[in-house]
Amino acid sequence: MCCADVRCSTVARWQHPIAIDPDAALPVFLQIARAIAEDVRRGRLKRGDALPGSRTLAEELSVHRNTVLAAYRELSSEGWLETKRGGGTFISAELPETAPRAFAPRVASRDRLGFDLAPGAFPHWELPTHPRGTLVLASGVPDARLVPTAPLARAYRRALELSGPALLSYGDPRGALRLREALAAMLSHLRGLPADPASFLVTRGSQGAIDLVARALIKPGDVVAVEALGYRPAWSAFEAAGARLVPVPVDQHGMRVEQLATIKPRAVYATPHHQFPTMVTMSAGRRLTLLELARVHRFAIVEDDYDFEFHYDGRPVLPLASADRAGVVVHVGTLSKILAPGLRIGFVTAPAALLERLTSIRIVVDRQGDLAVEHAVAELLEDSEVQRHARRVKREYHARRDALVEAIHEKLGGVMTVDPPAGGMAVWAKIDPSIDLDAWVTRALAAGVAFLPARHFAFDGRARPFARLGFASLDPRELREAVRRMALALRKRRSA
Amino acid sequence: MCCADVRCSTVARWQHPIAIDPDAALPVFLQIARAIAEDVRRGRLKRGDALPGSRTLAEELSVHRNTVLAAYRELSSEGWLETKRGGGTFISAELPETAPRAFAPRVASRDRLGFDLAPGAFPHWELPTHPRGTLVLASGVPDARLVPTAPLARAYRRALELSGPALLSYGDPRGALRLREALAAMLSHLRGLPADPASFLVTRGSQGAIDLVARALIKPGDVVAVEALGYRPAWSAFEAAGARLVPVPVDQHGMRVEQLATIKPRAVYATPHHQFPTMVTMSAGRRLTLLELARVHRFAIVEDDYDFEFHYDGRPVLPLASADRAGVVVHVGTLSKILAPGLRIGFVTAPAALLERLTSIRIVVDRQGDLAVEHAVAELLEDSEVQRHARRVKREYHARRDALVEAIHEKLGGVMTVDPPAGGMAVWAKIDPSIDLDAWVTRALAAGVAFLPARHFAFDGRARPFARLGFASLDPRELREAVRRMALALRKRRSA
Repeated sequence: MCCADVRCSTVARWQHPIAIDPDAALPVFLQIARAIAEDVRRGRLKRGDALPGSRTLAEELSVHRNTVLAAYRELSSEGWLETKRGGGTFISAELPETAPRAFAPRVASRDRLGFDLAPGAFPHWELPTHPRGTLVLASGVPDARLVPTAPLARAYRRALELSGPALLSYGDPRGALRLREALAAMLSHLRGLPADPASFLVTRGSQGAIDLVARALIKPGDVVAVEALGYRPAWSAFEAAGARLVPVPVDQHGMRVEQLATIKPRAVYATPHHQFPTMVTMSAGRRLTLLELARVHRFAIVEDDYDFEFHYDGRPVLPLASADRAGVVVHVGTLSKILAPGLRIGFVTAPAALLERLTSIRIVVDRQGDLAVEHAVAELLEDSEVQRHARRVKREYHARRDALVEAIHEKLGGVMTVDPPAGGMAVWAKIDPSIDLDAWVTRALAAGVAFLPARHFAFDGRARPFARLGFASLDPRELREAVRRMALALRKRRSA
Repeated sequence: MCCADVRCSTVARWQHPIAIDPDAALPVFLQIARAIAEDVRRGRLKRGDALPGSRTLAEELSVHRNTVLAAYRELSSEGWLETKRGGGTFISAELPETAPRAFAPRVASRDRLGFDLAPGAFPHWELPTHPRGTLVLASGVPDARLVPTAPLARAYRRALELSGPALLSYGDPRGALRLREALAAMLSHLRGLPADPASFLVTRGSQGAIDLVARALIKPGDVVAVEALGYRPAWSAFEAAGARLVPVPVDQHGMRVEQLATIKPRAVYATPHHQFPTMVTMSAGRRLTLLELARVHRFAIVEDDYDFEFHYDGRPVLPLASADRAGVVVHVGTLSKILAPGLRIGFVTAPAALLERLTSIRIVVDRQGDLAVEHAVAELLEDSEVQRHARRVKREYHARRDALVEAIHEKLGGVMTVDPPAGGMAVWAKIDPSIDLDAWVTRALAAGVAFLPARHFAFDGRARPFARLGFASLDPRELREAVRRMALALRKRRSA
């Protein structure tokens, strides 16, 4: 019947374009529907064209008639087809005219970009490609093998059991109150921060906090002062917000903050506790100067207090935030080091007006955190599970620091000098300037050990005779083996 | 001994400024240390000033001498104090000179802001304040009471047991491969999206995806076209990136896309499947026009496909992304509706170059997702737990839609007209224009039911005789009660 219609010439041309693959993931009826829609897009079927009856098409394609009917229903519900009162199925007259693109290549959309990206310098990411077995003296990664996973899993289950529906729905973008209470209790005690949970915003790790802060403080062109040797991911967040970064040198007392009097930045990003990457603790004098300059010049101090807990010799120095009476310090912390990076739990405490703005931005960025995980972590804090874990890994990292320092003295004595840092998760080693450090790093990688030269952390990207060796993620045996491989790589160079 | 020193005049003035609160959260030794540091900051103690001996101060303050020693150690480690060879403890000579601020008020830093925030219009957030017992016909929230929490908790535990250390450390910012594989398998099958996990980026809910996309596409001043009645949180993300929004009207076929030919935006944000908030499905004709305009004018279509699964009558319409051959569609989806908003798992699939840029930005925003939760959700997808849950809630929401529509017909027949939507989690109700809708909403809230008038979703903020009633988060009994309360509020208004 359909084929008596003049329009069927179209359909005749179209008789067998449908390659059905019974093994494909897409059901057969959808394969048929997609092929028809595709032919409309290409202009091979036009508005008002009749389609063959379902029985005819089913025979042609050797499929069950119901399959064809399902394909037609699919296309009808999408508006491609219309069924006319007298019977018969037609390409909808509502569709716009499409120019035929008969031989348009079938390019997957993934490989084409039909619009332009905004300009912007973002870090390029690649999957790490260290060969299996490489010992990575990474730049400050804790040992996730030590995390008490069973208590975490139990706490997560209890959180869901106790308040599942509330935690799985929309909630407080500042973070679960229970977690903010637990954090406030711990941090007011240990770090002299406010004891009020309303003074905290829980973020996606410290990176999440820094990105929010950058978006709240920076308008394009604003100057942000950073440490000339420093933490690149934080710089990226300020740059992404449009900041122009100005480096400030770092010496044995920390950042040379007096230079900020002439730079007059909008904000300064600093790591005063264990300067990243040099591990220096900012002196009390510099701290007072920094607070005073910020008060006078009205700039914000973004204090990244990422590893407060890991201080081995003497007591940790209280953060700048604990001495802030002018409302100039934005204090960023994280549970990444004390617990686990993968949980992505950080926090920020700041003057109330900024905290409110950060909350507003947070809603735009990702609405809220994972409240179930936040409750689980709160339970671990309430039960002192985190604190016990922190004490345990602090002892362990202390031993690892000593093992690394000893191995360096023993195997790399003439070449590498380290002052054991008072805290942190890495040493900053001075290298004999006659050594070609970049070549050593390359050879060491071939020998199965990865470590980072100062260049990696330098704002100017220039080489310096220093390297950072993280000791937290490897046990003493692994650390000794890592140093052995470093020494081997060095000897190879010498004998070459 | 110390008091024979002339410097002790300072200390004499300073004899009892330390108010010790034994019940405070801060340990006593820290209270003492803070008081001394505070006096240095205020200029009441100066560089080189001697402090009383630990025994003397302990007696004065009626504390154990070890407490004073601990305070001094704290201050020494922070660099405030120095101990001289001949004995005695002094304020460090290294500190900068501080002008005395004798009567500076003790203002907590939280209440002061010592710097300026960047300009920026972000949404203001407040804790929801509906009185307990209010029935909330919210704007598209699933019922978290239906989520299978036990399988989720089990899957989380298994993920930690199987690969805890890897999942708790730093990992792939694109999302766990396992989750991307599970999503790709489901979405290529159901929505005609790419089957390749490398084509997906897992995000923090759809909001996280839209914010990343906005940052990748928009430079300040760029025009983004949005639906004139639409989804405000997405608008905020584009505005935060500096976009100028231009509204495009919506009619019974969806967004009037032909207007984009003159607007020539940099991107268009749209909800073609179930238009938010009007629930209209964009017609096939408009879809083709939209794709063609985007191809010609090189703008991006950000397709928010937030509730694909919830289609009750007929089959869901395949997303624009499944028909994108020009590389113009950025497809955003979420597990918030099909599983739970609290898990914050969304995804985006887009042309490869954009996906790479999104990954770079994601590193800056929050580094990576929660890989343990991502693995847990992947397991629920692999075991078809999510799919079973989706079928179950789809049946349930279908029944709820019918219950709501029926209750409206019955109790609000003359006042409110609803076409049962083919899918989604809300109805878009037409209201008799003679009704004062804002007054009704206010009275309804007093009667214990919250619903949202069209004004809430309108780009121009102007009233229209429509309201959106979400039905997914309340069961049929609750829905009938909600409508009863709405009718009650209306009668009150009439009789008033």
